[in-house]
Amino acid sequence: MPERLDELRYHGGNLSAARRSFPNAPEPWIDLSTGINPVPYPLGIIAPSAWTKLPEPRGLAELEAAARAAHSAKPSTEIVAAPGTQALIQWLPRVFPARRAGILGFTYGEREECWRAAGTKVSTVEALTDLVAFDVSVVVNPNNPDGRTFPPDDLAEIAKTLAQHGGLLIVDEAFMDPLGRRSSLVPRLPEAGALVLRSFGKIHGLSGLRLGFAIAPPEVGEVLRRAIGRWAVSGPAIEIGRRALADASRLKETVARLSDEAARLDRLLQSAGFEIVGGTPLFRLAQHKRARAFFERLGRAGILSRPFQAKPDWLRFGIPHARAEWERLEAALDTSEGTFAEDGIRDAHC
Amino acid sequence: MPERLDELRYHGGNLSAARRSFPNAPEPWIDLSTGINPVPYPLGIIAPSAWTKLPEPRGLAELEAAARAAHSAKPSTEIVAAPGTQALIQWLPRVFPARRAGILGFTYGEREECWRAAGTKVSTVEALTDLVAFDVSVVVNPNNPDGRTFPPDDLAEIAKTLAQHGGLLIVDEAFMDPLGRRSSLVPRLPEAGALVLRSFGKIHGLSGLRLGFAIAPPEVGEVLRRAIGRWAVSGPAIEIGRRALADASRLKETVARLSDEAARLDRLLQSAGFEIVGGTPLFRLAQHKRARAFFERLGRAGILSRPFQAKPDWLRFGIPHARAEWERLEAALDTSEGTFAEDGIRDAHC
Repeated sequence: MPERLDELRYHGGNLSAARRSFPNAPEPWIDLSTGINPVPYPLGIIAPSAWTKLPEPRGLAELEAAARAAHSAKPSTEIVAAPGTQALIQWLPRVFPARRAGILGFTYGEREECWRAAGTKVSTVEALTDLVAFDVSVVVNPNNPDGRTFPPDDLAEIAKTLAQHGGLLIVDEAFMDPLGRRSSLVPRLPEAGALVLRSFGKIHGLSGLRLGFAIAPPEVGEVLRRAIGRWAVSGPAIEIGRRALADASRLKETVARLSDEAARLDRLLQSAGFEIVGGTPLFRLAQHKRARAFFERLGRAGILSRPFQAKPDWLRFGIPHARAEWERLEAALDTSEGTFAEDGIRDAHC
Repeated sequence: MPERLDELRYHGGNLSAARRSFPNAPEPWIDLSTGINPVPYPLGIIAPSAWTKLPEPRGLAELEAAARAAHSAKPSTEIVAAPGTQALIQWLPRVFPARRAGILGFTYGEREECWRAAGTKVSTVEALTDLVAFDVSVVVNPNNPDGRTFPPDDLAEIAKTLAQHGGLLIVDEAFMDPLGRRSSLVPRLPEAGALVLRSFGKIHGLSGLRLGFAIAPPEVGEVLRRAIGRWAVSGPAIEIGRRALADASRLKETVARLSDEAARLDRLLQSAGFEIVGGTPLFRLAQHKRARAFFERLGRAGILSRPFQAKPDWLRFGIPHARAEWERLEAALDTSEGTFAEDGIRDAHC
C-alpha cells in the first residue's frame, strides 16, 4: 500500500501503475483520478500540413488570439501558448528566479518541487494575505483539490502589493473555465500585474494534446515566450485548439453537462457515506474515515480515484461518463450487501 | 529586400512571410526552405486515449525504448523525449550553465541566442579542436547548412578533454539518420560523456508533431528530464513516434529515395549554374554569385528557398516532392530564355 500510494499519489492518470497495483481488476479501467472532461472536443479534420510542417508563426498567433477572446484578455495583455501548463510551470522558476516562494496550500504537489529545483526556498501558507511576503507567490484558483475560490479583487490586491517590491503573483486557473470570466483574474490584466495560467486539455477533454497558456503583462509574457522558444506547440494542438477555443456554445453546453454530472456524483458519494469537501464541475473532493479502504475497493473494481498521502481521509473523483461508468461506480460504492466486510467500510457507517 | 531576408533568414518554413513578400506568386507554394523529408511517415490510426488522456509514463518509456533501438544507444545511456529538439536547445543553457560556450560555425543561428540569453559568453570557432577551451561546446553533425561531418572518434576525444575540466560536449545530430550508426556518437555513449540531440520530425517528415530526443550519460540526461518535467510530449507524438522509430525497413527506403532525389537536385542546380557546396540527403547547399537574385526569382514562382544573411551567395534547398514540384523548380531555375533579364542571373553565367 505505501508503494502503491507512492506511485499514484501526486497526480492522476497513471493507469499502468493502477493495473500493476490491482492486477485482477476488470477492464476497461475507469479513470476518475484526473479532473479532465470525459467528453473530448471533436478532433475534426486536421490538415496534413499541421503534422508535416514546422508550425508557422501565423497559426500560433491565431491560436493565441482565440485564447485571448475565450479568456477575455485585453489586447494589451500578452498570451503565450505552451505544450501544456506543466511546461510553463517547469519554466517559471527559471525565468523568474526568486529567493523565497509562497504557495497557498493545501494544493497540487509538483509545483513546489519545480521551485525547489531552481534553488528557491518554498513555503506553504494557509491565508491569501500571507502571500505578500514572498518574491513569487502561487495561488491555484479554483484550488485543486478542494475547489476553494478566491475573489479576483483579493488576488489583484495581493498582486499589486507583491509588485511594489518587485514580486510576482502566479495564479493557476487550470480549472477556471466552468466558473466564467467574472471569477477570473485574466480580464484585470495587464493592470493587475499577475501571471495567469490557463489549461486547455482539462475542460476540452484533450489532455494528450498538450496545450496551455500563460497570460500576463507584456514584459512578463515576453520573458516566458523567449524561454520556451519557437515551435513549442504542435501543429495539431494549434489547429484543434484554435477551433475549440472559438466554440463558445459548445463550452456552455459542456459546463452545463459537467455541472449536472458533478451534482449527480455528489449524491452518489453521499449515499455511500462520503461528505463532499468541495470541488469544481471537473472533480469532486470527498471525505470518509475509510477513504483508503474505498480507494482499494474501487481499485479492485477497476476504478481509479485519487488519494492524497497527506490527507488519508480524502479521495478526489473525476466525472464518470456514460451509463456503464456510472453503473460500475455505483456498484463499487455500494457496501450494503456486507460482502466486502474485509474493506472495513461498513464499520465507518456506524 | 533586407526586411524580407530578416523575416526569412534564420529558419525555414515561414510560408506566411513568404506570401507577404511575394504576393503575386502562384499557389500552392513549394517550401524548400527546410530540411524535412517531404514524404511523411503514415499517421496510421491514433488511439482516442492518446488525445484525451495525460500521457502515461509507460507509453513514454516505450517511445524512449524505440528511440534507443533506432539510434543504437546502449542500455546504460539515458534517452529523454521532448517536444522537439528546439525545446531541448532552449533548456540546455539553463540546466548546464556555462561561463563560456563554443559553437563550431558556420551553423544554424538560434542556438547562440539561447546561450546568450542565459548569460553565457558565446564564441563561434572554425576548428573542432578549438572547442576544448570552453565550458560547453556545440557541434552540429552533420553540420547545417553545409553538411560537413565530423568523425565520432574526433568528437569522443573532444568530449573527453572537455569532461576533464567539467565541461560538456553537445552534438546535434538532427540530420544524422541518413548517415547511419557508424557516423553517430550515440553508440559511444555513455562512455564518451557527451550529450547528443536527435530530431524525429525531419527524417520522418512530421515536424508539426514536435518530437526530439536527448541522448546522454544517465547523470546528464536525468538533469534534463527533471527540467522538462512530466507530460512534455503529446500523446499522438508518443504513439506515432513509437511506430515510426521501430520501422527500420521504411527508414531504409526513405534514405534511399532521399539520396536519389538529392543527387537529382544537385544536377538540376548545377545545370542552372550553381556549385554544390555540400548538404545531406535532406537538404543541399548551393552557391551562386547571383544567389539572391535566384531567391527572388524562385520566390516570385512560389518556391521558397533558404537564404543566409551572412552568406549572400548561398542558398539551401530542401528536397522537392512529386513531379509537379520538380517541374516547377526546373522551370523557375531555367534562365535560358532570357525573359528574366531583370534578375541579373544570366550575367552570372558569363
